[in-house]
Amino acid sequence: MYRKEIKVLDCTVRDGGLMNKWLFSDDFVRAVYQACVTAGIDYMEIGYKSSESAFSRDEVGPWKFCDEADLRRIVGDNDTPLKLSAMADIGRIDPDDIPDARDSVLDMIRVACYIHQVDKAIVLAETCMEKGYEVSINLMAVSKVNEMELDEGLQDISKCKVPIVYIVDSFGSMYSQNILHLVQKYQKALPGKTLGIHAHNNMQLAMSNTITALTENCNMLDATLLGMGRGAGNCPMEILIAFLKNPKYRLLPLLDVIQNHIQPLQENIDWGYHIPYLITGALNEHPRSALKWMASEKKDDFVAFMKEMHDYE
Amino acid sequence: MYRKEIKVLDCTVRDGGLMNKWLFSDDFVRAVYQACVTAGIDYMEIGYKSSESAFSRDEVGPWKFCDEADLRRIVGDNDTPLKLSAMADIGRIDPDDIPDARDSVLDMIRVACYIHQVDKAIVLAETCMEKGYEVSINLMAVSKVNEMELDEGLQDISKCKVPIVYIVDSFGSMYSQNILHLVQKYQKALPGKTLGIHAHNNMQLAMSNTITALTENCNMLDATLLGMGRGAGNCPMEILIAFLKNPKYRLLPLLDVIQNHIQPLQENIDWGYHIPYLITGALNEHPRSALKWMASEKKDDFVAFMKEMHDYE
Repeated sequence: MYRKEIKVLDCTVRDGGLMNKWLFSDDFVRAVYQACVTAGIDYMEIGYKSSESAFSRDEVGPWKFCDEADLRRIVGDNDTPLKLSAMADIGRIDPDDIPDARDSVLDMIRVACYIHQVDKAIVLAETCMEKGYEVSINLMAVSKVNEMELDEGLQDISKCKVPIVYIVDSFGSMYSQNILHLVQKYQKALPGKTLGIHAHNNMQLAMSNTITALTENCNMLDATLLGMGRGAGNCPMEILIAFLKNPKYRLLPLLDVIQNHIQPLQENIDWGYHIPYLITGALNEHPRSALKWMASEKKDDFVAFMKEMHDYE
Repeated sequence: MYRKEIKVLDCTVRDGGLMNKWLFSDDFVRAVYQACVTAGIDYMEIGYKSSESAFSRDEVGPWKFCDEADLRRIVGDNDTPLKLSAMADIGRIDPDDIPDARDSVLDMIRVACYIHQVDKAIVLAETCMEKGYEVSINLMAVSKVNEMELDEGLQDISKCKVPIVYIVDSFGSMYSQNILHLVQKYQKALPGKTLGIHAHNNMQLAMSNTITALTENCNMLDATLLGMGRGAGNCPMEILIAFLKNPKYRLLPLLDVIQNHIQPLQENIDWGYHIPYLITGALNEHPRSALKWMASEKKDDFVAFMKEMHDYE
């Protein structure tokens, strides 16, 4: 599947950090960075851009903040073709805490928001554009949004300057048909904008949903090494790159970092396909109840979890 | 996805047995059987039907033979709506060792063959039909077959009496587009026959390929509990049943048997997504080299495996 417009974004550290509060060693983050550079990946999302007032450094690692000093300790001046991205959550970042792009090694800010925050997201995203960044709006949890609200949100976004908009399957609850429907809807509502896809693997469909989206002309593809990410994780980067067969990407450096850095983490961090994540995905629920269950002593009692979830309904 | 013609076949014991030489405890096989009955699954493939001369009982468990005495020890007279199936490999079963259907608890024989064995498969399959069984032909490793040979094989099958033909992605190397192409080809070449799909999960596409096939009117769907099967395993039954939302199926008994019998096996049997299986799948190779690698001390050295595989090419 060769199309020169396709860009692959690695969000291993950002989305994977949701599983360990971004308490990665510098060695780990540097290894992911080097692998992305060597493999020819287009973007690496290295964490969240948050204000110090929103989280405590005692609880979360540096990749929840993406301070320049921390970034540069890993990437220097990032004198490579790899672009660096950070995600900004509405309400957790004061725009004044985002430096001008010329003073940062970050190239891109992706603004994540829920449907009721679209207007705030547009303001923040346009502010980041004025500061000189590439910018996207990542509208989360869209599987829970009713179509009228979604149409209204997309209409607002269509009028703003932000050039990239992501379809985000936060709950891993979408089938190919849902992706198809949304990509076509977004395309119609957002003429001239680039679309992206961010999939989760609760029903082992993250890879195929990413293929469906790219076949429909989504050009920004999120993936993570060995699928590392919240809960069931994301579209595995190594499968995506093997599929794309694009000469600009190299698989071997990705296998190398998986072998030496990612897979060893799996001994302590239990991301990936597990039945509780399947259950929340199939029920179109936020994975938080499954994450809580998986962290408890009852983690292998799927039947009890299923019964509890049905009582919620 | 409700369509009354859809039948789901559990092949946990048959395909999973490829990972442990069918050395399952009776308790295990009985638990899978009971779960299939309670969950309303249509067929359970309990093993291979092989002749005693083809394999040694010292090396493989009873589900490599599916003798009546072994079967009845688990299922009695199987006085349930669940139909029982066994797979027959060309050259490993003497037709005389297959009793008449009226003397067996088996309801179905699925004849597995490679493209060069199609004519033998037709003879064996028609013999089984005469003995009173439901019968299918499962044409394996079709991703390696050139189209002219495949067209010829399908033409032969179209003329025979066997009513069910499976598309088998033995190497887990097919993308949705490949499945679509083959289902449409088989449909055109085999008018009036029912089609089935048997997928492997090397590229985490077994579930989505099964959806693609069923959307294109494949009505026999293979799946296994927690995806247990050779190498990367199969389409996970629990995800498929959650997708189908067909009132005749129940998810809870499947979660129960996974919790109490299947997941505990994973401590000793390492099926599922692993990088060596991704590599053979992406290269459209038989998984045997990956299986060998995974059984060796080098199992986590993906880079070495990738380099070795490329030297093969």
